[in-house]
Parts: sequence; structure tokens; C-alpha cells
Amino acid sequence: MHFTSKLLEELVNTFSSLPSIGKKSALRLALHLIREDKSKALRLSVALQDMVEKLQFCKLCHSISDRDICDICSSHSRNSSIICVVESIRDVMAIEETGQFNGLYHILGGVISPIEGVGPEDLTIENLLLRAKNGVVEELIMAISPTIEGDTTIYYITRQLSEAGIKVSTIARGVAFGGDLEYADELTLGRSIITRTPIDITN
Amino acid sequence: MHFTSKLLEELVNTFSSLPSIGKKSALRLALHLIREDKSKALRLSVALQDMVEKLQFCKLCHSISDRDICDICSSHSRNSSIICVVESIRDVMAIEETGQFNGLYHILGGVISPIEGVGPEDLTIENLLLRAKNGVVEELIMAISPTIEGDTTIYYITRQLSEAGIKVSTIARGVAFGGDLEYADELTLGRSIITRTPIDITN
Repeated sequence: MHFTSKLLEELVNTFSSLPSIGKKSALRLALHLIREDKSKALRLSVALQDMVEKLQFCKLCHSISDRDICDICSSHSRNSSIICVVESIRDVMAIEETGQFNGLYHILGGVISPIEGVGPEDLTIENLLLRAKNGVVEELIMAISPTIEGDTTIYYITRQLSEAGIKVSTIARGVAFGGDLEYADELTLGRSIITRTPIDITN
Repeated sequence: MHFTSKLLEELVNTFSSLPSIGKKSALRLALHLIREDKSKALRLSVALQDMVEKLQFCKLCHSISDRDICDICSSHSRNSSIICVVESIRDVMAIEETGQFNGLYHILGGVISPIEGVGPEDLTIENLLLRAKNGVVEELIMAISPTIEGDTTIYYITRQLSEAGIKVSTIARGVAFGGDLEYADELTLGRSIITRTPIDITN
């Protein structure tokens, strides 16, 4: 690209160094900010700087937080006897969206993957084990990807807690609500039969 | 979306207020910058601030520039007797990319469009007429969209210059090099026959 301005070039190059933003999209973004909305450019600049300077990871659950301890971990209205273990902050956001969970979270930062060189020490498993053994926690819900790596991670954590008397469960896997059986993949359908739920008509 | 951090929420909201970036892309961008690369976040922050504070529009051609007069307008190696008139900075960049033009540019900022309420006074036409009549300029090349609005704009400018003795031309429209005739649209193909180029075998 031929730029008439070094400042524009720098802005476009920085935008296009972000994932899934190509050169043309970067130019469109830069020109939008230049022509339409300089206040938005300043707002983005400040938001980025604030993020770099102020954002922290919660010392307990490792979620992104504005403080040492995040809002969820410091909330008195949440059930601290149950911890939902997830891979990333996105999973926390997705589960919070459902409104179906009132416990605490723990973000592993990934899963154990020998192929990618990720061992237990690269994740926040040590901290999770400490939290789990604090005398308050009764159950861990493992909301981890149903992959070989995910299963390995679940197995590793469960084994480490085998003598602590803490219940470990995984979220239910099965055919999605509204999903047609014929379009479900074989593995999901097969597992959904093995882990079938009894119908309780007493309610 | 449920955020665990106001700072993250502000960053995601600002990203997603940009064109063609949705909430999910904005979250992915923010998390990328947080987890992978804080230096990139700072670089983007600085580039945005520099752009807001320092970026200018060239007083002659209205291109984006780091100075009062842009590099092209202030260059001694460019032919100042010929001005290529375009709608936007993108067009300048596209033409510079070809390496086929050594004159100056003039950026109109759009085209005359009564439907969208854009009149000649909303564009940089007045400045173009002043530039064209400076005694040095001999030709204007109109590299404007071949639409009704574009043709109106070309007609308006040509009429304003009718007594100034300045040649006005438009870039050639036709079937693209490497383009199959059968896939060319009728208008382009029809016009390419009317404005056919004589073959000169003396070269």
C-alpha cells in the first residue's frame, strides 16, 4: 500500500497486526476513525491504555478483573462451596449468560496438551487444588472441552483430589435442545444414550 | 454479554462500535491484546492518539497528511500541470500502487448527490477550481465512479472550467485485462465498443 501519511501507515499496520483484520479492513477502520469519528478514536486509545495499566487477573479464579479479587469471587450472594472449572474467560461469560449457575469459577487458562507442550504447571491447576482443599469447597464442575486433552485435564485434576473427599462432575454432554437427532454427530448421540437421564414423574 | 471487568467491557464496546466488528470479534480482539500482547495494545493506543492529535488534511489536495502540504503536493519530481481528481484517499492509494501516474491529486471527498443531499459546496470543488486556474495546470483527469452522481460531478466541474482552457479527461472504462468478454456486464462491454482504441502498429 502507498500511504500519503506515516501516521496513517502506522495506524493501519497496527490494526492489521490484530487477528482476523487484514490490510484492507485495517485501512477501512482507520479511515472511518479519521473521517467520521475522532472522539471514538480517542475513546479506543484510552480504553486500550486503561486496559494495559489497570486490568488484572483475579488472584483466586484468574478471571480478568478490575481489582485483586473479581466481583464474582468477592460476592456474598454466590455459593462458594461449588466451583465451575473452565478453560477461558469466554466460558465464564457464556455460563453467566445462562443465569443457571450461582457458584464460583476457576479459569485454567487452557488444557493439558503434551503435543503443544502445555503441562499442568503451565495452567492454574496448583491454585485450583489449593482452593479446592480450603474446607469450604464441596464440588468441582468441570466445564472443559470434550477432547482428549480436556479429558486428560479432568482426569489429572480428579486424581489429585482423590483423597480430599471433593465431588467432581462434568457438565452434561448430549444432543442440543431443539437439535434434530439425525443431524447430531455419532459421538454425541452415542454418549447421550450412555449417559441418559431418568425421567422423574414425581415432580 | 456478562463481563467480569468494566475495563474489558469498555474495550469490547468500543471495538464493536467500529464498522464490521461485532461483539464476538471485539471480545476476541480484546482478549488477544490482554493475553498475548500488551505492547501491541499500547502501540495501537499511541497510534490512535497520534492520529487524532497530529493528522491533517493537505491544504492543496485534501489528502490525509502529516503536514500542511502532503508529500505528493510538495514533491519537485511530480508533474504539477496535471491533476487526477478522485473521490477518496483510497483512490489515491490505488493509483499510486500502479506507478503509472506522476501528476498531482485532488480529493473531492465524494460526488454530487442530490438524493443524499450532497451539493458542490459539500465537496472540495471550489478549491479544485482555484487550483485548476493557477496558470500551471493544463489537464484534469477525472477518476470518478461511472455512476449518475459521478457523471453529474464530472459535468459540473467541466462546465465550471469551460472558459479556462483546461483539458478535462476521464480514465478509460472497459473490459478488464484478463477479463472474459462473456462475463463483462453489458454497460461496460457496450461502452468499451463505443470508446474503442485504434491499434497503432507504427511503434
